[in-house]
Amino acid sequence: MFGWLRRKFGKTDRFARLDATQFPRFAPGTVWLVGAGPGAPGLISLLGYYGLGEADTIVYDALVGPDLLAMANPRAEMIYAGKRGGKPSPKQADITLTLIEHARAGKKVLRLKGGDPMMFGRGGEEALALARESIGFRIVPGITAGVGGLAYAGIPVTHRDTNHAVIFLTGHDEKGGVPQAVDWPAVSTAAPVIVMYMAIKHLGSIAEKLVAAGRSPEDRLAVVSNATLPSQSVVETTLADASTLAARTDIPTPAIVVVGPVSRYRQTLDWYTGGENALG
Amino acid sequence: MFGWLRRKFGKTDRFARLDATQFPRFAPGTVWLVGAGPGAPGLISLLGYYGLGEADTIVYDALVGPDLLAMANPRAEMIYAGKRGGKPSPKQADITLTLIEHARAGKKVLRLKGGDPMMFGRGGEEALALARESIGFRIVPGITAGVGGLAYAGIPVTHRDTNHAVIFLTGHDEKGGVPQAVDWPAVSTAAPVIVMYMAIKHLGSIAEKLVAAGRSPEDRLAVVSNATLPSQSVVETTLADASTLAARTDIPTPAIVVVGPVSRYRQTLDWYTGGENALG
Repeated sequence: MFGWLRRKFGKTDRFARLDATQFPRFAPGTVWLVGAGPGAPGLISLLGYYGLGEADTIVYDALVGPDLLAMANPRAEMIYAGKRGGKPSPKQADITLTLIEHARAGKKVLRLKGGDPMMFGRGGEEALALARESIGFRIVPGITAGVGGLAYAGIPVTHRDTNHAVIFLTGHDEKGGVPQAVDWPAVSTAAPVIVMYMAIKHLGSIAEKLVAAGRSPEDRLAVVSNATLPSQSVVETTLADASTLAARTDIPTPAIVVVGPVSRYRQTLDWYTGGENALG
Repeated sequence: MFGWLRRKFGKTDRFARLDATQFPRFAPGTVWLVGAGPGAPGLISLLGYYGLGEADTIVYDALVGPDLLAMANPRAEMIYAGKRGGKPSPKQADITLTLIEHARAGKKVLRLKGGDPMMFGRGGEEALALARESIGFRIVPGITAGVGGLAYAGIPVTHRDTNHAVIFLTGHDEKGGVPQAVDWPAVSTAAPVIVMYMAIKHLGSIAEKLVAAGRSPEDRLAVVSNATLPSQSVVETTLADASTLAARTDIPTPAIVVVGPVSRYRQTLDWYTGGENALG
Protein backbone atom coordinates (compact mmCIF):
# COMPACT_ATOMS: atom_id res chain seq x y z
CA MET A 1 0.00 0.00 0.00
CA PHE A 2 2.82 2.41 0.79
CA GLY A 3 5.31 1.32 -1.80
CA TRP A 4 4.65 4.35 -3.97
CA LEU A 5 5.23 6.69 -1.05
CA ARG A 6 8.91 5.95 -0.89
CA ARG A 7 9.39 6.45 -4.58
CA LYS A 8 7.31 9.53 -5.15
CA PHE A 9 7.99 12.06 -2.46
CA GLY A 10 10.82 13.83 -0.74
CA LYS A 11 11.21 14.99 2.81
CA THR A 12 9.19 18.16 2.44
CA ASP A 13 6.16 16.13 1.45
CA ARG A 14 6.59 13.74 4.31
CA PHE A 15 3.23 14.42 5.92
CA ALA A 16 1.49 15.79 2.83
CA ARG A 17 1.64 12.39 1.21
CA LEU A 18 -0.67 11.08 3.91
CA ASP A 19 -3.43 13.35 2.64
CA ALA A 20 -3.47 11.19 -0.47
CA THR A 21 -3.66 7.98 1.55
CA GLN A 22 -6.87 6.17 2.31
CA PHE A 23 -7.48 5.95 6.03
CA PRO A 24 -10.29 3.83 7.44
CA ARG A 25 -13.61 5.52 6.72
CA PHE A 26 -15.04 7.65 9.50
CA ALA A 27 -18.70 7.00 8.74
CA PRO A 28 -21.36 9.55 9.72
CA GLY A 29 -23.36 8.31 12.68
CA THR A 30 -20.42 6.47 14.22
CA VAL A 31 -18.11 7.16 17.14
CA TRP A 32 -14.33 6.88 17.31
CA LEU A 33 -12.92 6.40 20.80
CA VAL A 34 -9.46 7.92 20.47
CA GLY A 35 -6.53 7.89 22.86
CA ALA A 36 -4.65 11.19 22.76
CA GLY A 37 -1.57 9.79 24.47
CA PRO A 38 0.16 11.13 27.57
CA GLY A 39 0.15 14.80 26.57
CA ALA A 40 2.64 15.79 23.90
CA PRO A 41 0.64 16.31 20.69
CA GLY A 42 3.31 14.49 18.69
CA LEU A 43 2.45 11.28 20.52
CA ILE A 44 -1.05 10.91 19.09
CA SER A 45 -1.28 8.26 16.38
CA LEU A 46 -1.59 9.03 12.69
CA LEU A 47 -5.05 7.49 12.81
CA GLY A 48 -6.08 9.57 15.82
CA TYR A 49 -4.83 12.72 14.12
CA TYR A 50 -6.74 11.80 10.98
CA GLY A 51 -9.91 11.30 13.02
CA LEU A 52 -9.52 14.71 14.67
CA GLY A 53 -9.49 16.35 11.27
CA GLU A 54 -12.51 14.40 10.09
CA ALA A 55 -14.83 14.63 13.09
CA ASP A 56 -17.97 16.78 13.30
CA THR A 57 -18.28 16.51 17.08
CA ILE A 58 -15.38 16.11 19.50
CA VAL A 59 -16.06 15.25 23.13
CA TYR A 60 -12.84 15.73 25.06
CA ASP A 61 -11.49 15.21 28.55
CA ALA A 62 -9.79 17.57 30.97
CA LEU A 63 -6.50 15.78 30.28
CA VAL A 64 -6.45 16.78 26.62
CA GLY A 65 -4.45 19.97 26.13
CA PRO A 66 -5.00 22.92 23.79
CA ASP A 67 -2.25 21.94 21.36
CA LEU A 68 -4.01 18.65 20.72
CA LEU A 69 -7.40 20.29 20.37
CA ALA A 70 -5.93 22.71 17.84
CA MET A 71 -5.35 19.71 15.56
CA ALA A 72 -9.10 19.23 15.21
CA ASN A 73 -11.33 20.00 12.28
CA PRO A 74 -11.97 23.76 12.66
CA ARG A 75 -15.64 23.19 11.92
CA ALA A 76 -16.07 20.54 14.60
CA GLU A 77 -18.29 21.17 17.58
CA MET A 78 -16.07 20.91 20.65
CA ILE A 79 -17.72 19.55 23.79
CA TYR A 80 -15.87 19.54 27.09
CA ALA A 81 -16.48 16.49 29.23
CA GLY A 82 -14.08 17.29 32.01
CA LYS A 83 -13.51 14.90 34.82
CA ARG A 84 -10.48 14.68 37.00
CA GLY A 85 -9.14 11.74 38.94
CA GLY A 86 -10.17 11.28 42.54
CA LYS A 87 -13.54 12.92 42.21
CA PRO A 88 -16.90 11.28 41.73
CA SER A 89 -17.99 11.16 38.11
CA PRO A 90 -21.72 11.74 38.03
CA LYS A 91 -21.48 12.84 34.45
CA GLN A 92 -20.43 9.58 32.82
CA ALA A 93 -24.05 8.86 31.84
CA ASP A 94 -24.33 12.34 30.35
CA ILE A 95 -21.14 11.89 28.35
CA THR A 96 -22.37 8.61 26.95
CA LEU A 97 -25.72 10.20 26.11
CA THR A 98 -23.96 13.02 24.26
CA LEU A 99 -22.04 10.51 22.15
CA ILE A 100 -25.24 8.64 21.33
CA GLU A 101 -27.26 11.77 20.49
CA HIS A 102 -24.65 13.21 18.17
CA ALA A 103 -24.16 9.87 16.45
CA ARG A 104 -27.92 9.53 15.97
CA ALA A 105 -27.92 12.99 14.42
CA GLY A 106 -25.58 11.63 11.78
CA LYS A 107 -22.41 13.24 13.06
CA LYS A 108 -18.94 11.79 12.98
CA VAL A 109 -18.33 11.75 16.70
CA LEU A 110 -14.84 11.57 18.18
CA ARG A 111 -14.39 10.87 21.87
CA LEU A 112 -10.91 12.10 22.79
CA LYS A 113 -9.38 10.78 25.99
CA GLY A 114 -6.00 11.31 27.57
CA GLY A 115 -3.71 8.27 27.37
CA ASP A 116 -5.41 5.14 26.06
CA PRO A 117 -9.20 4.79 26.11
CA MET A 118 -9.10 1.30 27.58
CA MET A 119 -6.39 1.74 30.20
CA PHE A 120 -8.36 3.10 33.15
CA GLY A 121 -10.10 5.33 30.62
CA ARG A 122 -13.64 3.95 30.75
CA GLY A 123 -13.56 3.51 27.01
CA GLY A 124 -14.92 0.01 27.46
CA GLU A 125 -18.00 1.34 29.22
CA GLU A 126 -18.63 3.90 26.51
CA ALA A 127 -18.12 1.34 23.77
CA LEU A 128 -20.58 -1.05 25.47
CA ALA A 129 -23.18 1.73 25.66
CA LEU A 130 -22.73 2.46 21.96
CA ALA A 131 -22.95 -1.21 21.06
CA ARG A 132 -26.20 -1.53 23.04
CA GLU A 133 -27.64 1.28 20.93
CA SER A 134 -26.34 -0.33 17.74
CA ILE A 135 -24.09 2.64 17.03
CA GLY A 136 -20.95 1.74 15.13
CA PHE A 137 -17.65 2.57 16.77
CA ARG A 138 -13.90 2.22 16.32
CA ILE A 139 -11.24 2.21 19.00
CA VAL A 140 -8.06 4.14 18.25
CA PRO A 141 -5.57 3.24 20.97
CA GLY A 142 -3.24 5.76 22.53
CA ILE A 143 0.06 5.67 24.36
CA THR A 144 -0.71 5.23 28.02
CA ALA A 145 1.07 7.59 30.43
CA GLY A 146 2.21 4.70 32.60
CA VAL A 147 4.48 3.57 29.78
CA GLY A 148 5.17 6.60 27.59
CA GLY A 149 5.11 9.16 30.37
CA LEU A 150 7.67 7.23 32.37
CA ALA A 151 9.90 6.96 29.30
CA TYR A 152 10.03 10.77 29.17
CA ALA A 153 11.27 10.69 32.75
CA GLY A 154 14.05 8.28 31.81
CA ILE A 155 12.30 5.35 33.49
CA PRO A 156 11.89 2.18 31.45
CA VAL A 157 8.76 0.41 32.60
CA THR A 158 10.55 -2.91 32.22
CA HIS A 159 14.21 -3.82 32.15
CA ARG A 160 15.64 -7.29 31.77
CA ASP A 161 17.78 -6.90 34.90
CA THR A 162 14.91 -5.82 37.14
CA ASN A 163 11.53 -7.12 36.03
CA HIS A 164 9.75 -9.55 33.74
CA ALA A 165 6.42 -8.22 35.00
CA VAL A 166 4.80 -4.89 35.73
CA ILE A 167 1.46 -4.13 37.35
CA PHE A 168 -0.72 -1.13 36.56
CA LEU A 169 -3.44 0.00 38.92
CA THR A 170 -5.60 2.98 39.81
CA GLY A 171 -4.98 4.70 43.12
CA HIS A 172 -8.64 5.43 43.67
CA ASP A 173 -11.94 3.80 42.86
CA GLU A 174 -15.10 5.40 41.47
CA LYS A 175 -16.05 6.63 44.94
CA GLY A 176 -12.71 8.38 45.38
CA GLY A 177 -11.28 5.97 47.99
CA VAL A 178 -8.43 3.50 47.81
CA PRO A 179 -9.71 0.63 45.62
CA GLN A 180 -11.03 -2.02 47.99
CA ALA A 181 -10.79 -4.83 45.48
CA VAL A 182 -7.00 -4.52 45.22
CA ASP A 183 -5.12 -7.29 47.01
CA TRP A 184 -2.15 -5.23 48.25
CA PRO A 185 -0.08 -8.14 49.57
CA ALA A 186 -0.36 -9.85 46.19
CA VAL A 187 0.35 -6.60 44.35
CA SER A 188 3.46 -6.02 46.43
CA THR A 189 4.99 -9.34 45.39
CA ALA A 190 3.50 -9.98 41.93
CA ALA A 191 5.78 -7.58 40.11
CA PRO A 192 8.89 -5.62 41.06
CA VAL A 193 7.44 -2.59 39.33
CA ILE A 194 4.07 -1.04 40.23
CA VAL A 195 2.71 1.80 38.12
CA MET A 196 -0.16 3.78 39.61
CA TYR A 197 -2.59 6.18 37.98
CA MET A 198 -4.47 8.84 39.97
CA ALA A 199 -2.65 7.78 43.10
CA ILE A 200 -1.45 11.07 44.59
CA LYS A 201 -4.44 11.55 46.86
CA HIS A 202 -3.95 8.23 48.66
CA LEU A 203 -0.21 7.85 48.12
CA GLY A 204 0.70 7.70 51.81
CA SER A 205 -1.93 5.09 52.53
CA ILE A 206 -0.96 2.99 49.52
CA ALA A 207 2.74 3.13 50.40
CA GLU A 208 1.93 1.97 53.94
CA LYS A 209 -0.05 -0.96 52.57
CA LEU A 210 2.85 -1.97 50.35
CA VAL A 211 5.36 -1.81 53.20
CA ALA A 212 2.99 -3.71 55.48
CA ALA A 213 2.79 -6.35 52.76
CA GLY A 214 6.53 -6.79 52.71
CA ARG A 215 7.95 -4.17 50.38
CA SER A 216 11.10 -2.57 51.66
CA PRO A 217 10.58 0.96 53.04
CA GLU A 218 13.67 1.83 50.99
CA ASP A 219 12.01 0.86 47.72
CA ARG A 220 12.23 3.63 45.19
CA LEU A 221 9.17 5.68 44.32
CA ALA A 222 9.00 8.31 41.60
CA VAL A 223 6.21 10.69 40.70
CA VAL A 224 6.08 12.04 37.15
CA SER A 225 3.78 15.05 36.76
CA ASN A 226 2.58 16.46 33.43
CA ALA A 227 4.53 13.74 31.67
CA THR A 228 5.76 14.49 28.14
CA LEU A 229 4.76 18.17 28.40
CA PRO A 230 7.17 21.11 28.72
CA SER A 231 5.91 21.42 32.32
CA GLN A 232 6.95 17.84 33.16
CA SER A 233 8.42 17.45 36.63
CA VAL A 234 9.69 14.45 38.55
CA VAL A 235 10.03 13.84 42.29
CA GLU A 236 11.87 10.84 43.69
CA THR A 237 11.55 9.39 47.15
CA THR A 238 11.09 6.05 48.91
CA LEU A 239 8.06 4.14 50.13
CA ALA A 240 8.95 5.17 53.68
CA ASP A 241 8.85 8.85 52.76
CA ALA A 242 5.85 8.66 50.46
CA SER A 243 3.44 10.03 53.06
CA THR A 244 5.64 13.11 53.53
CA LEU A 245 5.61 13.58 49.78
CA ALA A 246 1.86 13.04 49.60
CA ALA A 247 1.33 15.74 52.26
CA ARG A 248 2.83 18.31 49.93
CA THR A 249 0.22 20.28 48.09
CA ASP A 250 2.45 21.36 45.26
CA ILE A 251 2.65 18.10 43.32
CA PRO A 252 1.14 18.89 39.94
CA THR A 253 -1.39 16.48 38.50
CA PRO A 254 -1.98 14.50 36.43
CA ALA A 255 0.81 12.39 37.80
CA ILE A 256 2.03 8.84 37.36
CA VAL A 257 3.59 7.03 40.32
CA VAL A 258 6.09 4.23 39.84
CA VAL A 259 7.36 1.99 42.62
CA GLY A 260 10.33 -0.27 42.06
CA PRO A 261 13.92 -0.49 40.91
CA VAL A 262 13.44 0.86 37.37
CA SER A 263 13.50 4.48 38.49
CA ARG A 264 17.20 4.10 39.28
CA TYR A 265 17.88 4.13 35.54
CA ARG A 266 16.67 7.72 35.50
CA GLN A 267 20.09 8.79 36.75
CA THR A 268 21.50 7.72 33.39
CA LEU A 269 18.50 7.92 31.08
CA ASP A 270 16.98 11.28 31.94
CA TRP A 271 17.00 12.49 28.35
CA TYR A 272 14.00 14.80 28.20
CA THR A 273 14.89 18.41 28.72
CA GLY A 274 11.37 19.72 28.34
CA GLY A 275 10.15 22.82 26.65
CA GLU A 276 12.14 22.19 23.52
CA ASN A 277 9.08 21.82 21.40
CA ALA A 278 5.38 21.43 22.07
CA LEU A 279 5.16 18.42 19.77
CA GLY A 280 7.25 16.14 21.82
CA MET B 1 1.72 26.63 18.72
CA PHE B 2 -1.11 25.13 16.68
CA GLY B 3 -3.60 27.99 16.81
CA TRP B 4 -2.87 28.96 13.23
CA LEU B 5 -3.46 25.43 12.02
CA ARG B 6 -7.16 25.57 12.69
CA ARG B 7 -7.58 28.87 10.93
CA LYS B 8 -5.44 28.36 7.92
CA PHE B 9 -6.11 24.98 6.42
CA GLY B 10 -8.94 22.79 5.27
CA LYS B 11 -9.37 19.07 5.38
CA THR B 12 -7.29 18.32 2.33
CA ASP B 13 -4.28 19.91 3.98
CA ARG B 14 -4.78 18.01 7.17
CA PHE B 15 -1.45 16.23 7.14
CA ALA B 16 0.37 18.66 4.83
CA ARG B 17 0.22 21.35 7.49
CA LEU B 18 2.46 19.20 9.67
CA ASP B 19 5.27 19.59 7.14
CA ALA B 20 5.33 23.27 8.15
CA THR B 21 5.46 22.43 11.85
CA GLN B 22 8.63 22.26 13.86
CA PHE B 23 9.15 18.82 15.31
CA PRO B 24 11.90 18.16 17.85
CA ARG B 25 15.24 18.21 16.08
CA PHE B 26 16.68 14.88 15.01
CA ALA B 27 20.34 15.74 15.45
CA PRO B 28 23.03 13.94 13.43
CA GLY B 29 24.94 11.54 15.64
CA THR B 30 21.94 10.77 17.83
CA VAL B 31 19.58 7.81 18.11
CA TRP B 32 15.81 7.80 18.37
CA LEU B 33 14.32 4.68 19.96
CA VAL B 34 10.89 4.53 18.36
CA GLY B 35 7.91 2.32 19.13
CA ALA B 36 6.08 1.34 15.96
CA GLY B 37 2.96 0.25 17.81
CA PRO B 38 1.19 -3.11 17.55
CA GLY B 39 1.26 -3.42 13.78
CA ALA B 40 -1.17 -1.19 11.89
CA PRO B 41 0.90 1.64 10.36
CA GLY B 42 -1.77 4.18 11.35
CA LEU B 43 -0.98 3.51 14.99
CA ILE B 44 2.54 4.93 14.93
CA SER B 45 2.78 8.38 16.53
CA LEU B 46 3.18 11.60 14.55
CA LEU B 47 6.61 11.94 16.11
CA GLY B 48 7.60 8.40 15.18
CA TYR B 49 6.44 8.96 11.62
CA TYR B 50 8.40 12.21 11.47
CA GLY B 51 11.51 10.41 12.69
CA LEU B 52 11.14 7.71 10.02
CA GLY B 53 11.20 10.36 7.34
CA GLU B 54 14.21 12.10 8.83
CA ALA B 55 16.48 9.15 9.66
CA ASP B 56 19.63 8.19 7.78
CA THR B 57 19.87 4.72 9.31
CA ILE B 58 16.92 2.62 10.43
CA VAL B 59 17.52 -0.50 12.49
CA TYR B 60 14.27 -2.46 12.62
CA ASP B 61 12.84 -5.53 14.28
CA ALA B 62 11.13 -8.58 12.84
CA LEU B 63 7.84 -7.30 14.23
CA VAL B 64 7.85 -4.20 12.05
CA GLY B 65 5.92 -4.79 8.85
CA PRO B 66 6.54 -3.59 5.29
CA ASP B 67 3.83 -0.91 5.34
CA LEU B 68 5.56 0.77 8.25
CA LEU B 69 8.98 0.48 6.64
CA ALA B 70 7.59 2.09 3.50
CA MET B 71 7.01 5.25 5.54
CA ALA B 72 10.76 5.67 5.95
CA ASN B 73 13.07 8.14 4.28
CA PRO B 74 13.73 6.52 0.88
CA ARG B 75 17.40 7.36 1.22
CA ALA B 76 17.76 5.73 4.63
CA GLU B 77 19.92 2.68 5.08
CA MET B 78 17.64 -0.09 6.32
CA ILE B 79 19.21 -2.61 8.70
CA TYR B 80 17.31 -5.68 9.77
CA ALA B 81 17.83 -6.69 13.40
CA GLY B 82 15.39 -9.53 13.52
CA LYS B 83 14.70 -11.39 16.71
CA ARG B 84 11.63 -13.33 17.59
CA GLY B 85 10.22 -14.21 20.97
CA GLY B 86 11.20 -17.46 22.62
CA LYS B 87 14.58 -17.70 20.97
CA PRO B 88 17.92 -16.73 22.43
CA SER B 89 19.06 -13.30 21.38
CA PRO B 90 22.81 -13.43 20.99
CA LYS B 91 22.69 -10.45 18.70
CA GLN B 92 21.64 -7.77 21.19
CA ALA B 93 25.25 -6.67 21.58
CA ASP B 94 25.60 -6.47 17.81
CA ILE B 95 22.45 -4.37 17.50
CA THR B 96 23.67 -1.96 20.13
CA LEU B 97 27.04 -1.77 18.42
CA THR B 98 25.36 -0.95 15.12
CA LEU B 99 23.47 1.91 16.72
CA ILE B 100 26.66 3.27 18.26
CA GLU B 101 28.72 2.96 15.08
CA HIS B 102 26.19 4.71 12.89
CA ALA B 103 25.67 7.46 15.44
CA ARG B 104 29.43 7.96 15.68
CA ALA B 105 29.52 8.25 11.89
CA GLY B 106 27.22 11.25 12.25
CA LYS B 107 24.04 9.54 11.09
CA LYS B 108 20.55 10.16 12.37
CA VAL B 109 19.86 6.67 13.65
CA LEU B 110 16.35 5.38 14.24
CA ARG B 111 15.83 2.16 16.14
CA LEU B 112 12.34 0.92 15.23
CA LYS B 113 10.73 -1.62 17.52
CA GLY B 114 7.33 -3.25 17.50
CA GLY B 115 5.01 -1.99 20.25
CA ASP B 116 6.70 0.27 22.78
CA PRO B 117 10.49 0.29 23.19
CA MET B 118 10.33 0.08 26.99
CA MET B 119 7.57 -2.49 27.41
CA PHE B 120 9.50 -5.75 27.14
CA GLY B 121 11.31 -4.14 24.22
CA ARG B 122 14.80 -3.84 25.65
CA GLY B 123 14.80 -0.16 24.80
CA GLY B 124 16.11 0.58 28.26
CA GLU B 125 19.15 -1.58 27.66
CA GLU B 126 19.88 0.09 24.35
CA ALA B 127 19.41 3.54 25.83
CA LEU B 128 21.80 2.70 28.67
CA ALA B 129 24.42 1.54 26.19
CA LEU B 130 24.06 4.79 24.24
CA ALA B 131 24.26 6.88 27.40
CA ARG B 132 27.45 5.06 28.42
CA GLU B 133 28.96 6.08 25.09
CA SER B 134 27.71 9.66 25.51
CA ILE B 135 25.51 9.35 22.44
CA GLY B 136 22.40 11.49 22.60
CA PHE B 137 19.08 9.72 22.29
CA ARG B 138 15.33 10.30 22.40
CA ILE B 139 12.63 7.83 23.25
CA VAL B 140 9.49 7.91 21.14
CA PRO B 141 6.95 5.69 22.86
CA GLY B 142 4.61 3.40 20.96
CA ILE B 143 1.28 1.74 21.61
CA THR B 144 1.97 -1.57 23.27
CA ALA B 145 0.19 -4.59 21.84
CA GLY B 146 -1.05 -5.65 25.27
CA VAL B 147 -3.28 -2.59 25.35
CA GLY B 148 -3.90 -1.54 21.75
CA GLY B 149 -3.85 -5.02 20.28
CA LEU B 150 -6.46 -6.23 22.72
CA ALA B 151 -8.64 -3.21 21.89
CA TYR B 152 -8.71 -4.37 18.27
CA ALA B 153 -10.02 -7.71 19.51
CA GLY B 154 -12.81 -5.96 21.43
CA ILE B 155 -11.14 -6.60 24.77
CA PRO B 156 -10.72 -3.59 27.08
CA VAL B 157 -7.63 -4.14 29.19
CA THR B 158 -9.47 -2.63 32.17
CA HIS B 159 -13.14 -2.20 32.92
CA ARG B 160 -14.61 -0.65 36.04
CA ASP B 161 -16.79 -3.70 36.67
CA THR B 162 -13.96 -6.21 36.47
CA ASN B 163 -10.55 -4.77 37.38
CA HIS B 164 -8.75 -1.82 38.93
CA ALA B 165 -5.45 -3.49 38.18
CA VAL B 166 -3.80 -5.34 35.31
CA ILE B 167 -0.48 -7.15 35.18
CA PHE B 168 1.75 -7.46 32.13
CA LEU B 169 4.45 -10.08 31.92
CA THR B 170 6.62 -11.95 29.47
CA GLY B 171 5.97 -15.62 28.96
CA HIS B 172 9.63 -16.44 28.52
CA ASP B 173 12.92 -15.15 29.83
CA GLU B 174 16.12 -14.45 27.91
CA LYS B 175 17.03 -18.14 27.96
CA GLY B 176 13.69 -19.10 26.40
CA GLY B 177 12.19 -20.71 29.51
CA VAL B 178 9.31 -19.67 31.73
CA PRO B 179 10.59 -16.68 33.72
CA GLN B 180 11.83 -18.03 37.05
CA ALA B 181 11.60 -14.70 38.83
CA VAL B 182 7.82 -14.53 38.38
CA ASP B 183 5.88 -15.26 41.56
CA TRP B 184 2.93 -17.09 39.98
CA PRO B 185 0.78 -17.31 43.12
CA ALA B 186 1.09 -13.54 43.60
CA VAL B 187 0.46 -12.90 39.90
CA SER B 188 -2.67 -15.02 40.00
CA THR B 189 -4.23 -12.90 42.73
CA ALA B 190 -2.68 -9.46 42.21
CA ALA B 191 -4.89 -8.51 39.28
CA PRO B 192 -7.98 -10.04 37.72
CA VAL B 193 -6.47 -9.46 34.30
CA ILE B 194 -3.10 -10.87 33.21
CA VAL B 195 -1.66 -9.86 29.85
CA MET B 196 1.19 -11.97 28.53
CA TYR B 197 3.68 -11.26 25.78
CA MET B 198 5.57 -14.04 23.99
CA ALA B 199 3.69 -16.63 26.01
CA ILE B 200 2.52 -19.12 23.39
CA LYS B 201 5.46 -21.48 23.77
CA HIS B 202 4.89 -22.04 27.49
CA LEU B 203 1.16 -21.36 27.57
CA GLY B 204 0.18 -24.75 28.95
CA SER B 205 2.75 -24.60 31.70
CA ILE B 206 1.80 -21.04 32.65
CA ALA B 207 -1.91 -21.87 32.75
CA GLU B 208 -1.16 -24.83 35.03
CA LYS B 209 0.79 -22.57 37.38
CA LEU B 210 -2.08 -20.09 37.53
CA VAL B 211 -4.63 -22.82 38.30
CA ALA B 212 -2.34 -24.34 40.90
CA ALA B 213 -2.12 -20.87 42.46
CA GLY B 214 -5.88 -20.64 42.79
CA ARG B 215 -7.19 -19.32 39.51
CA SER B 216 -10.35 -21.04 38.38
CA PRO B 217 -9.80 -23.53 35.55
CA GLU B 218 -12.84 -21.88 33.99
CA ASP B 219 -11.16 -18.47 33.80
CA ARG B 220 -11.27 -17.02 30.34
CA LEU B 221 -8.17 -16.94 28.18
CA ALA B 222 -7.93 -15.26 24.78
CA VAL B 223 -5.09 -15.26 22.28
CA VAL B 224 -4.90 -12.37 19.83
CA SER B 225 -2.54 -13.04 16.91
CA ASN B 226 -1.27 -10.40 14.48
CA ALA B 227 -3.22 -7.80 16.42
CA THR B 228 -4.39 -4.71 14.47
CA LEU B 229 -3.34 -6.21 11.14
CA PRO B 230 -5.72 -7.46 8.43
CA SER B 231 -4.53 -10.97 9.38
CA GLN B 232 -5.61 -10.55 13.01
CA SER B 233 -7.16 -13.68 14.52
CA VAL B 234 -8.49 -14.46 17.97
CA VAL B 235 -8.90 -17.75 19.79
CA GLU B 236 -10.80 -18.04 23.05
CA THR B 237 -10.55 -20.82 25.60
CA THR B 238 -10.18 -21.35 29.35
CA LEU B 239 -7.18 -21.89 31.60
CA ALA B 240 -8.14 -25.58 31.81
CA ASP B 241 -7.98 -25.94 28.05
CA ALA B 242 -4.94 -23.76 27.49
CA SER B 243 -2.57 -26.68 27.13
CA THR B 244 -4.73 -28.13 24.36
CA LEU B 245 -4.63 -24.77 22.64
CA ALA B 246 -0.88 -24.48 23.15
CA ALA B 247 -0.37 -27.88 21.53
CA ARG B 248 -1.78 -26.54 18.30
CA THR B 249 0.88 -25.52 15.88
CA ASP B 250 -1.29 -23.19 13.86
CA ILE B 251 -1.50 -20.25 16.26
CA PRO B 252 0.09 -17.37 14.42
CA THR B 253 2.62 -15.22 16.23
CA PRO B 254 3.22 -12.60 17.44
CA ALA B 255 0.36 -13.17 19.83
CA ILE B 256 -0.89 -11.52 22.99
CA VAL B 257 -2.51 -13.69 25.66
CA VAL B 258 -5.04 -12.25 28.08
CA VAL B 259 -6.38 -14.12 31.10
CA GLY B 260 -9.39 -12.80 32.99
CA PRO B 261 -12.95 -11.58 32.75
CA VAL B 262 -12.40 -8.71 30.29
CA SER B 263 -12.43 -10.99 27.28
CA ARG B 264 -16.14 -11.56 27.83
CA TYR B 265 -16.76 -8.03 26.50
CA ARG B 266 -15.51 -9.22 23.15
CA GLN B 267 -18.94 -10.72 22.49
CA THR B 268 -20.30 -7.17 22.33
CA LEU B 269 -17.26 -5.10 21.42
CA ASP B 270 -15.71 -7.08 18.59
CA TRP B 271 -15.65 -4.10 16.24
CA TYR B 272 -12.60 -4.77 14.07
CA THR B 273 -13.44 -6.48 10.83
CA GLY B 274 -9.90 -6.60 9.52
CA GLY B 275 -8.63 -6.06 6.06
CA GLU B 276 -10.58 -2.86 5.54
CA ASN B 277 -7.46 -0.79 5.25
CA ALA B 278 -3.80 -1.34 5.92
CA LEU B 279 -3.59 1.84 7.97
CA GLY B 280 -5.79 0.75 10.78
